[in-house]
This record gives sequence, structure tokens and C-alpha cells, in this order.
Amino acid sequence: MSKSVKKSDLPVHLARRYLEPGPIVLISSAWQGETNIMTLGWHTILEFAPSLIGCMISAGNHSFELVRRSGECVINLPTTRLTDSVVGIGNTSGNEIDKFAHFGLTPETSARVAAPRIGECHAHFECRLYDDAMVERYNFFIFEIVKAQAPTRPKHPETLHYTGEGVFMVAGKVISRRRLFKPEMLV
Amino acid sequence: MSKSVKKSDLPVHLARRYLEPGPIVLISSAWQGETNIMTLGWHTILEFAPSLIGCMISAGNHSFELVRRSGECVINLPTTRLTDSVVGIGNTSGNEIDKFAHFGLTPETSARVAAPRIGECHAHFECRLYDDAMVERYNFFIFEIVKAQAPTRPKHPETLHYTGEGVFMVAGKVISRRRLFKPEMLV
Repeated sequence: MSKSVKKSDLPVHLARRYLEPGPIVLISSAWQGETNIMTLGWHTILEFAPSLIGCMISAGNHSFELVRRSGECVINLPTTRLTDSVVGIGNTSGNEIDKFAHFGLTPETSARVAAPRIGECHAHFECRLYDDAMVERYNFFIFEIVKAQAPTRPKHPETLHYTGEGVFMVAGKVISRRRLFKPEMLV
Repeated sequence: MSKSVKKSDLPVHLARRYLEPGPIVLISSAWQGETNIMTLGWHTILEFAPSLIGCMISAGNHSFELVRRSGECVINLPTTRLTDSVVGIGNTSGNEIDKFAHFGLTPETSARVAAPRIGECHAHFECRLYDDAMVERYNFFIFEIVKAQAPTRPKHPETLHYTGEGVFMVAGKVISRRRLFKPEMLV
């Protein structure tokens, strides 16, 4: 995905199209002039309206404090074009390197949050902290997605899904069973 | 996946191998002689030890009360062999039908919980309610996986990943980047 590809606004509840299948995402954050990026595989959609997503961001990550203090982040969706960068980002620390510079990624200005989005990613979901009640005990942040952007095509990008042990499943074919759904279930 | 395939015990923290990639799962539950099955796509791993998983089970589901009252469930992993049953289960209610009977699925006795597992599924994760602090507000159950079982092969089954609108992404190829990981990151 070239960063020059035009991305369009998406209704925020349609974040589920990209995030519910369970891809590895890149969380970008900023606080007091510092930015960072981390990989995240532990997330789940929680609600459509407001558009809520829960993310387990371990306190051991340098990003934890940036997200906690700013109350914001961007969830960026990488595809297989970024596989080695995704692995590199997950195996280095923002304590030691500037991840945007080190991995040649472009910090782009976000629309609704101060955290920069990652230009090379397929889609972006700008988030504000909605509920921190589970942060203390589980490092579990509940964010509201306040802005969603993705290109019109491909609708189903080749995302990475982590299985542990250094191994990823890559998003495969797409099948529709739309005819078997009740109309009210077709959100 | 024939139900006659032998499944072996798996260390509970390795549930992440199957669940972190984000598949649709089937939740089976039981309470006072009644059983039910529901589809679930909104889940995330939360911790390795104890092996915790968070699941958003909407209160509108018939399974909600069975899970809430029993404090137990089984997370079963279906593959593409069960696609139409998965869709059928998600588009019917346990208020109206016996889902095991209606979809020809086999309730098997679980090892650690009263809820039956679904014989035709690839893997089974028996769960006990660990923390209900987020159930009232978000229908978000935090379970501890107390028993995990899966066949030795295939290690990466053809799972279903829901994107909304009646469309699924099917698990595709598997790629390793193990050589790029720090040893301590290879959980």
C-alpha cells in the first residue's frame, strides 16, 4: 500500500470490517513531543455505537505511558507489505529508537487526535480513551474510534494474524454467506 | 474435521495460537439441563498465566443467561467445514430451537466444566468466569481457560474470520518470521 493511495472516510462502526477478523495492528501514540509505535494483537470490538474497541496494552511497553497520559492513539492496519517492519517494531523498544525513523515510516497528521497516523498502513482508526476502569488490573484500554479512514479498494486487504512463536497467518480468500443471514443481522 | 479425530491436551496459554488470529468461535453453555450454542467474533486474549480471554457476549443472546448463571462455557473453534452451521447458529435463537439437534452437532462431555463441548469443532477451550466486573456495563466476560484441547495436526486450521455484512475471510497461508524475533519474544 503506497502512502499516496487516497483514503476515504468510513463510518466509524465499519472499523469492524477490518478489525473484527483479528489482524495485528500498529498503535501509534504521542505525548509531549515524543511518538512511538507498537504492535498489538490483543484487541476486540466491543460496541458499534459508540464505536468501541478494547486493547490490551501491556504496561511493559514504552507506548503504555504515552497512550495513558495522552488518552489517545491511532490504530493503524498494516498489510503483508509491512511484514518485516511489523516484526521489527514488535522486537524493539521506543526507549531505544525512534520507530518512525528507524523503520522508514511516515508520521501523518491525524484528523481528530494528536497522535500521528502511519502513512504506509492500509487503514487508520483514530481513538480516544473512553473508559480506563480496566487499565489498572488488566492493562485493558477501552477506546472510542472517532475517525476511520481506508481506501475504497481493496476492501479486504492482506492482513497479518499472529499465532505466536514467530508465525503469522495471512488473510486468505473471502467468502460470502449473505443469503443465509437474516436482514437484521447484516450490520 | 471428523469428531473421531484425536485431540490432545494443550498447555492452556497456547490457546493464543488458535484464538489470537481472531477467528469466529462457537460458545457452548449449559444451565439447569438446558444447553445452547452461539457464534462469537468479539474476543481477545488478555493474559498468558492465568490464561485469560475476554468475550463480549451481548445480553440479547439466549446464551448470556446460561453463561452468566453457570459461570462457565466452552469456546469451540470451527473450521470452514462448518461454515453454513456457523452462519445458521448466528441467525437463530436458543429460545426457539435446540441448536445441537437442529445443526446435527454432537455435545461431548467436557473435562473441567459442565457445559458440553462441540465434537465437530477443531479445538476446545473450557472456560470458567474469572472476573465479571465489566459484564454489567459492556457485556464483557473475562474467562480463565482451564483446559485446552486440539489435534496435533493441522496446527493452523482453516478458520473463519468475520468482517460483517455476511462476509468471512478464510485463514490463508502461514508464514514464519521466527528468525527476526528476539528469543524472549517467542512465546
